[in-house]
Amino acid sequence: MFFEITHKEKHTRARTGILRTEHGEIETPVFMPVGTQATVKSLDSADLHNLRTQIILANTYHLHLRPGEDIIADFGGLHNFMQWDGPILTDSGGFQVFSLAQTKKGVTEDETNGAEHAKLVSIDEEGVTFRSHIDGSTRRFTPESAIEIQHKLGADIIMAFDECTPDNANDAYTIEAMERTHRWAGQSLAAHKKNPTHHGYKQFLFGIIQGANHEDLRKQSAEYISGLDFDGIAIGGESIGYNMEATKQILDWVYPILPEQKPHYTMGLGHSPRDLFEVVERGIDMFDCVSPTRMARNGTLFVHPSIEASGRIMITNSKYKTDHHPIDATFDGSPIQNYSRAYLHHLFKTQELLAYRIATLHNLYFLSKLMSDMREAIKNDTFLELKKQWVT
Amino acid sequence: MFFEITHKEKHTRARTGILRTEHGEIETPVFMPVGTQATVKSLDSADLHNLRTQIILANTYHLHLRPGEDIIADFGGLHNFMQWDGPILTDSGGFQVFSLAQTKKGVTEDETNGAEHAKLVSIDEEGVTFRSHIDGSTRRFTPESAIEIQHKLGADIIMAFDECTPDNANDAYTIEAMERTHRWAGQSLAAHKKNPTHHGYKQFLFGIIQGANHEDLRKQSAEYISGLDFDGIAIGGESIGYNMEATKQILDWVYPILPEQKPHYTMGLGHSPRDLFEVVERGIDMFDCVSPTRMARNGTLFVHPSIEASGRIMITNSKYKTDHHPIDATFDGSPIQNYSRAYLHHLFKTQELLAYRIATLHNLYFLSKLMSDMREAIKNDTFLELKKQWVT
Repeated sequence: MFFEITHKEKHTRARTGILRTEHGEIETPVFMPVGTQATVKSLDSADLHNLRTQIILANTYHLHLRPGEDIIADFGGLHNFMQWDGPILTDSGGFQVFSLAQTKKGVTEDETNGAEHAKLVSIDEEGVTFRSHIDGSTRRFTPESAIEIQHKLGADIIMAFDECTPDNANDAYTIEAMERTHRWAGQSLAAHKKNPTHHGYKQFLFGIIQGANHEDLRKQSAEYISGLDFDGIAIGGESIGYNMEATKQILDWVYPILPEQKPHYTMGLGHSPRDLFEVVERGIDMFDCVSPTRMARNGTLFVHPSIEASGRIMITNSKYKTDHHPIDATFDGSPIQNYSRAYLHHLFKTQELLAYRIATLHNLYFLSKLMSDMREAIKNDTFLELKKQWVT
Repeated sequence: MFFEITHKEKHTRARTGILRTEHGEIETPVFMPVGTQATVKSLDSADLHNLRTQIILANTYHLHLRPGEDIIADFGGLHNFMQWDGPILTDSGGFQVFSLAQTKKGVTEDETNGAEHAKLVSIDEEGVTFRSHIDGSTRRFTPESAIEIQHKLGADIIMAFDECTPDNANDAYTIEAMERTHRWAGQSLAAHKKNPTHHGYKQFLFGIIQGANHEDLRKQSAEYISGLDFDGIAIGGESIGYNMEATKQILDWVYPILPEQKPHYTMGLGHSPRDLFEVVERGIDMFDCVSPTRMARNGTLFVHPSIEASGRIMITNSKYKTDHHPIDATFDGSPIQNYSRAYLHHLFKTQELLAYRIATLHNLYFLSKLMSDMREAIKNDTFLELKKQWVT
């Protein structure tokens, strides 16, 4: 069985479970660090193991452009290419394609290249034509090609090709985009079912619910995607993770419709440890976000709210220049617990490469430990007590 | 005993030895990686241990400016500050002060900031007044203050304050600078002898031979420095390591004068594995150089000459895009041996932070292993056979 629920918390919709893949078991709920270009920025695979990372995410759009899926397939897939033997999830590439289109409006999700480029994204019923942000070459993704690329990349969990509609699109366009996403979901599934095994193991395919912030569309999309034979259900959209009020609302709308026995995944969620409590409480099993690693590289570090009410400190602040304490003394067991705030402050001020690595190790260990605590609380039916310490 | 010679090779002046410090024993000959700002760029202390690093070098000039020696002294010295429990050597700051002056001529040794700044270095008999390249503030080093700063930093081995004369200085100035270096050597020694113990352990002080590329001055300087009660003897100067013909010549001039029982150190030497053979053959026990780590960050990686006659490959070359081999298959035991050239090529092409770390780990492991092989060959009196494989 791919997904098994091991405990349902008494007072909330929170649950613990196990995802079983060729590259190991994943205890849920789980935060998945993002390794956009086949590396979690600044870390190697030994680091990921030290952090007790259970699964990482990689981006199909970026890997298609560099180094290209054929080079990775020639290695027998991403695991061998990047020497990470744990589970991997790839997105379908759609989100990045559409967020590149959005850079026209000053929004970008491409953390590797924030520069504005002349973009050209054109959507038709069969797929999306776009330009590479690397060399301007014209490319095209269809549901079938997005699945084929993901087959070559060989992640344990792959995603259906979808259109992430902007929240500010008009009603007519939002409906049109949702219906296109539904058709593409069916096509993605058909393309995958023909041959779900690559590089010697089965890959699992998730469908994605869209519908922006419309209650009727979200419910309709949840019905449609839940009715298809996917291995898991994701909730996508611009608001998810970025607007927590909208996210909570959307989760409350779709929850009664989601098949209980399938894993539930909110895409792009995890800007703050608090957000994780909100969605776990609402029955979510998986989430990923670039923020914890991106914030780390800016010197923003997670700490327990008992240390700083905001749950984060900015290590470049001059008050840390002489601070002998570890970043967060409440988090023992961290691989970087011996380093002082003063040392990390110094590394950031001198722009030393080690700064980014220590900070990244900290934020990811912090989330790894927090999720472990959360799973323990769910098993003890004390989830709300733990949440109270974090969300006030 | 601080330094013990354990074997003298039969056919050359090469020898093996042991340096004993508070933070551990060092087998010589040894290459010392440079950790300018209290970090070997991109590596943490666990990495250094994995590379079997015996001792690292840190730069007094940089640490004086950021974070300042008082903050480090407050931690009980560099070892605690950077969480590296092995031996450390600090330079006296002089070399960086003078090389900043040289940036006017387009030469810089400051690997952390290559930008041209308005520099002001003024040398008098008592010391050097200069401007910080960080904030332009006026600073002054004297032999006494350079020793005091190094006492606060707490390295196991510290260096006398000297003036590194440019090779193209006229004869009169070269003599004047050498004589000043000799006076400063005496003052450094006196300042240190008053109190050689800090942070609870004894620090060892080395003197530095100057004299540019003049045979008479080099011999005179070797006589003078060898006559003082230093724990070790360094050979400094612009040519050392940068002009190997001049370096070999200088070593041949001074060798008969150097006290055999003291460790011999060529400063700034190690641009290429070949260079290490040349100086070990001439009785040198220690050397440091920023090049192996700096080259790594540019994608230049050491390989055995049987792989590439030049002894290095440029991993960004497109021929490595699909190359499944490890960087150097002859170097097993490396902590990064599982990563392929294609993966590292991808990381460099996408400017991923992990690229710099893997490349740095490679070049330093390469030198660590090479020095271990060299010590073995010296003990077996087969140094020249080993050298023949590397220097053709």
